[in-house]
Amino acid sequence: MTSLPLRPRIAVVGSGAIGCYYGGKLAAAGHDVHFLMRSDLEAVREHGLTLHSVGAPAVHLPSVQAHGSTADIGPSDLVIIAVKTTSNNVLETLIPPLLHENTVLITLQNGMGNEDLLACHFGAERVMGALCFVCLNRVAPGVIEHYGHGTISIGEYRGQPQARTHAFAAALREAGLEVAVVDNLIGERWRKLVWNIPFNGVCIAAGGVTTADILADEGLTHLVRQLMRETISIAAAGGHAIPDSYIDFQFQRTHPMGAYKPSSLLDWWAGRPVEVEAIWGEPYRIGRSLGLDIGRLETLYFLLKKLTVEKPAS
Amino acid sequence: MTSLPLRPRIAVVGSGAIGCYYGGKLAAAGHDVHFLMRSDLEAVREHGLTLHSVGAPAVHLPSVQAHGSTADIGPSDLVIIAVKTTSNNVLETLIPPLLHENTVLITLQNGMGNEDLLACHFGAERVMGALCFVCLNRVAPGVIEHYGHGTISIGEYRGQPQARTHAFAAALREAGLEVAVVDNLIGERWRKLVWNIPFNGVCIAAGGVTTADILADEGLTHLVRQLMRETISIAAAGGHAIPDSYIDFQFQRTHPMGAYKPSSLLDWWAGRPVEVEAIWGEPYRIGRSLGLDIGRLETLYFLLKKLTVEKPAS
Repeated sequence: MTSLPLRPRIAVVGSGAIGCYYGGKLAAAGHDVHFLMRSDLEAVREHGLTLHSVGAPAVHLPSVQAHGSTADIGPSDLVIIAVKTTSNNVLETLIPPLLHENTVLITLQNGMGNEDLLACHFGAERVMGALCFVCLNRVAPGVIEHYGHGTISIGEYRGQPQARTHAFAAALREAGLEVAVVDNLIGERWRKLVWNIPFNGVCIAAGGVTTADILADEGLTHLVRQLMRETISIAAAGGHAIPDSYIDFQFQRTHPMGAYKPSSLLDWWAGRPVEVEAIWGEPYRIGRSLGLDIGRLETLYFLLKKLTVEKPAS
Repeated sequence: MTSLPLRPRIAVVGSGAIGCYYGGKLAAAGHDVHFLMRSDLEAVREHGLTLHSVGAPAVHLPSVQAHGSTADIGPSDLVIIAVKTTSNNVLETLIPPLLHENTVLITLQNGMGNEDLLACHFGAERVMGALCFVCLNRVAPGVIEHYGHGTISIGEYRGQPQARTHAFAAALREAGLEVAVVDNLIGERWRKLVWNIPFNGVCIAAGGVTTADILADEGLTHLVRQLMRETISIAAAGGHAIPDSYIDFQFQRTHPMGAYKPSSLLDWWAGRPVEVEAIWGEPYRIGRSLGLDIGRLETLYFLLKKLTVEKPAS
């Protein structure tokens, strides 16, 4: 297992809201952070990076190490991957210039299959992953609004947390973030999908509705519960047991959200790519390969794949 | 089993395109047909009924027996029921004034459960049913356009065809219609649903697409096939075996339809009620009561129920 040096050279690939927020927090804490930027490169070189958090003073980083290519960044110790999963096909060519023998890759992306992709191309021993529970929005080039939460759960792709897992967790904590180190990263991903598969999916497939609309509809509530069961059955068949009581817990925590619009719904409405393969496609393929009958997920996946090709009429 | 007199008094309940077409054909052939009319009553009393068929001379019935209530029509020998299934709740009060001891009821409606409803309220021995394979449109009050087909398959709700079944078939044939007398009416309904459940449903749930769009999409084609399998499994569990080869046959006959828009999709687009319960709800409830795992139909049903509450944005 590769380890991290005391003051790692950090590259951030995918400088949207997630990449700028976590990378910016690390940079503000004095870390050596290099951002790969595309459309925002000039603006960030000129004006730096600004993080606005509700109820906290804004963090302004006037001088950010922003680069136009990963070749410009060069070999790094830790690569934070935060591109949208719909752009995962670019990683195979973007990542190699950032690698040295011991480079660690950590994906902050949504859904299932991202660690697998990195492991397949660059070796499983390099790979870590994280789940970000945070509400962010990029409101202008280099300007990120942070609305709430911020907990990041990090873990190893293969096996238990290592010295490097705890080292990176400590760095994030020193940067002011709430961090959990998890024993079973993929199990945590399944737990997050138990909510995201039904709610993100049905909010789109039922025509563009909120979580409150679903909870007010008996049929859709039943459907969400059955989709949660199917998701848990796939996780369990893959060795990640989740108790049935987790379903009631998910409903309990959804009620106080009110008329919440999941990020996938906002993406669809805005005409941005929806992360269909990471959230529904990959779990569906895993379930099928395990021989499971997951008809509701199958239906949702193929409908979403077609529905999200276009922005909905409004 | 009740029988039909030689020259039955016929009432048509639900004078949309289907009711006016089949009732009009019988009236043109000299039958004693009484139409229940609502919005079209004045226009039909003044101008009569006109049936335009592609490639045939128009049939004009200048003097039609149109009534504003079933009390005005009074006891009849045969009641043809052609209201949209979304209005089925009115039948319980509309039908009784039309009944004498031997009145026969025949439903020309779509989907599953219509014969059951009539049997439940008015006695199973009265009930017949028919499947209409016809393309019709009501283009103005009392004016029906007939675009193609016209075969009507009639059968008994309970058991084999009787003298009355053949008598009504003969009357329809004399009126110039193509008629099949079927041994297993409910089995035929299931066969029709093997197509309607997936294609009518997915055309709406995938965002408003045609049958050609579905056939061009690998995922949706797979989904349609699986929905056909689920439908066949419900039919089979209820004693109506349909061979698997029927699925390939349905795909073969769908290809030449091109960019076909099923009636449910046209209803949805036009803001008219969609027959969700007859086409998806009732088959779903039957499947569940038989203990079957029909997750795809469940997903489609609950999504459609929500989606069709409103006309889609355009």
